[in-house]
Amino acid sequence: MLSCIAEVRVTPILISDPPLLNLQGVHQPYTPRTIVEVITGSGVVGIGETYGDTDYLNIAQAFGPELIGGELTVNDLPARVAACTERVGAQRIDNTVQAEGLRGSRSMTKIALSVSSAFEVAIWDALGHELGLPVHALLGGKVRDAVEYSAYLFYRWAEHPEPDEPKDTWGAALDPEGVVAQAKRMADDYGFSSFKLKGGVFEPAQEVAAIRALAEAFPGQPLRLDPNGAWSVATSLEVAAQLEGVAEYLEDPTTGTSNMAQVAARTSLPLATNMCVTSVDEIAEAFRTDAVQVVLSDHHYWGGLRATQDLAAVCRAFGVELSMHSNTHLGISLAAMTQVAATIPGLRYACDTHRPWQTEDVITEPHTFSGGKLAVTDTPGLGVELDRDSLAKLHKRWQESEVRTRDDAAAMRRVHPDWTAPAFPRW
Amino acid sequence: MLSCIAEVRVTPILISDPPLLNLQGVHQPYTPRTIVEVITGSGVVGIGETYGDTDYLNIAQAFGPELIGGELTVNDLPARVAACTERVGAQRIDNTVQAEGLRGSRSMTKIALSVSSAFEVAIWDALGHELGLPVHALLGGKVRDAVEYSAYLFYRWAEHPEPDEPKDTWGAALDPEGVVAQAKRMADDYGFSSFKLKGGVFEPAQEVAAIRALAEAFPGQPLRLDPNGAWSVATSLEVAAQLEGVAEYLEDPTTGTSNMAQVAARTSLPLATNMCVTSVDEIAEAFRTDAVQVVLSDHHYWGGLRATQDLAAVCRAFGVELSMHSNTHLGISLAAMTQVAATIPGLRYACDTHRPWQTEDVITEPHTFSGGKLAVTDTPGLGVELDRDSLAKLHKRWQESEVRTRDDAAAMRRVHPDWTAPAFPRW
Repeated sequence: MLSCIAEVRVTPILISDPPLLNLQGVHQPYTPRTIVEVITGSGVVGIGETYGDTDYLNIAQAFGPELIGGELTVNDLPARVAACTERVGAQRIDNTVQAEGLRGSRSMTKIALSVSSAFEVAIWDALGHELGLPVHALLGGKVRDAVEYSAYLFYRWAEHPEPDEPKDTWGAALDPEGVVAQAKRMADDYGFSSFKLKGGVFEPAQEVAAIRALAEAFPGQPLRLDPNGAWSVATSLEVAAQLEGVAEYLEDPTTGTSNMAQVAARTSLPLATNMCVTSVDEIAEAFRTDAVQVVLSDHHYWGGLRATQDLAAVCRAFGVELSMHSNTHLGISLAAMTQVAATIPGLRYACDTHRPWQTEDVITEPHTFSGGKLAVTDTPGLGVELDRDSLAKLHKRWQESEVRTRDDAAAMRRVHPDWTAPAFPRW
Repeated sequence: MLSCIAEVRVTPILISDPPLLNLQGVHQPYTPRTIVEVITGSGVVGIGETYGDTDYLNIAQAFGPELIGGELTVNDLPARVAACTERVGAQRIDNTVQAEGLRGSRSMTKIALSVSSAFEVAIWDALGHELGLPVHALLGGKVRDAVEYSAYLFYRWAEHPEPDEPKDTWGAALDPEGVVAQAKRMADDYGFSSFKLKGGVFEPAQEVAAIRALAEAFPGQPLRLDPNGAWSVATSLEVAAQLEGVAEYLEDPTTGTSNMAQVAARTSLPLATNMCVTSVDEIAEAFRTDAVQVVLSDHHYWGGLRATQDLAAVCRAFGVELSMHSNTHLGISLAAMTQVAATIPGLRYACDTHRPWQTEDVITEPHTFSGGKLAVTDTPGLGVELDRDSLAKLHKRWQESEVRTRDDAAAMRRVHPDWTAPAFPRW
């Protein structure tokens, strides 16, 4: 028999993040993540990561000890974490889009699943190490040897406002030329051949111009625009009309399934989402109304890797394409995304990843993209190892900082004191 | 690393089957099954079973050797078996309900998946033995320790027509009294507390009378009636009106998703199906039109255990319940059904099984029902072992017989020479 779980560690960290702009504001200099370790009786360590905001961290810290003595199984995790969340009584939240979130409506159920995902990934990793098998083999086996990712382009400032805050070498991107320059470096450094622009920052016309500039710079290559639901139905349709034949898809042009369905009915451009379909109970309405043609899965949202495979099955049954969303994440989650993506038949769209924007990591050998792809490793577990020095350093930063949540609007107010996250639709 | 697949054996057998009646005719004295063994380089044996009719057997025999040298993974099986099926060029079949089939429309895709399922189960079993883990652990872990089954009641003759054909001690059941007597023995011998009657044999009024007699004999216990699509929409609604508050659900009262949707819209009785939703491409229409409230999964139909979990995920997303269908099967498939059912959250309905009707098996220790349930074993793999003597005996029977398909209508014609499988709707 396998070893049981002997120890669970939940470590909050702060990682540096560049000043990427979006509808809600700007990324903070530091953003919290939670790193989970599941250690078995035989000394094997499995790792996972998820959001680090206080609600998530509180649940993760409360739930971790409940795993001790248990087996390396995952199917009961969602129910167990949900029950723990009830007991922890994390702060009541309202079920609307929040300033700090770009992931659609927020609910305790969703937060519990995001916490669950870190434990689920860590358990798969531990199980893989116990058995000497890659995670993909535990998920039924890979159907591809490499997973393609897309360049995730952002309007951004060159630097955060304070002089001692983390810097990088990307420079500003605040117009079509800046976006194209950023895309060229992404293509050169990583080999990405499809490009997604995080929109919702400027008026639609400027963002359309950026996509057109990309189309000129990268003729025939897939392009996507994601304003995080910023537009009205009418604006969405105007943009769609301008980008038909240019963009590969529009991502969340407008907020809410009903609005998305109205747009989808009147454009030939596929609509993708990581906002209106982010949990099981949001699927049926969206699929019944043909509101979305591509679901951007995020294993953090859905509760882990098996839940991602489940979502893929639902999409397959309804002829909806699947690809992957990404929020700020480190190499553990990138490994997890790659392992599960390797097992899903029919992935036609390159997956999103923020990874190029992160200058820090908690794994010993950060991933190397080749031709925009990551090889699917066959080494045991996720194929990555925790860098304990790095983890300790980033945890110390968390301990010494007062940053406990990601709040892009608050970060924006440091520069524009009157900033408030916009009402929908913004345009 | 794990051993690769070193050998694959595909063995056709004939198993005895009692004279159970249905819409199409009567079960033959002997029915074909295919037993699959996947043997690894380390000598571990994984086993699976599926249909044994010629189309299935031909594909299984052609595909088996393709696995040799490969890994114990399953996600690529459906595509590989489908490609093999194309090459084998199994006889063209038309896409309508066949006399020999009670599983909805027939297609090469469905047959290929049924073949794939036997290899998928065998690979899980082998992987479990290689790793020392039960199959449920490989599927993410069990969420229950026992799986409940229902009594599968049949109108039946006491004996097959020829004197040297297999016999059993159940006697005839051709009226409500016979059905109740059969149910009582099922309850006594196996502890089943829910009951399904295979209908479509007699006029609806007699079958309604049988359900009412069961309700009197087993007050408050769940009852189901399954005429295999024999009724018109109008008849279905008449029966539904009579059985509301009496039956737990009606299974496939009428044929086709559109008819089912018409019935579902006008009765409070849930409709279950193993005929109009038996493959991925049949899901969307049925769920969009609320044609079914319970999908009776059959891992043979859907391509295996992961496919069953996938189906469960789709059902969950649409608020459709999942339970399990059963066709004539042996202990390998019963073990597989139990292992996968153990991993699916929220199974509310007892699963079907034909197992009590089978007097033969190919495993060394046939299952024992307790209180209508089977315990979920934690021993490696499926938790059952192939009985090689029995396999050899049943294979010899196959070699010495000319029976190569199951054809309930032909079996009926041995007694009623003018019998033809009915046109739909029969009533």
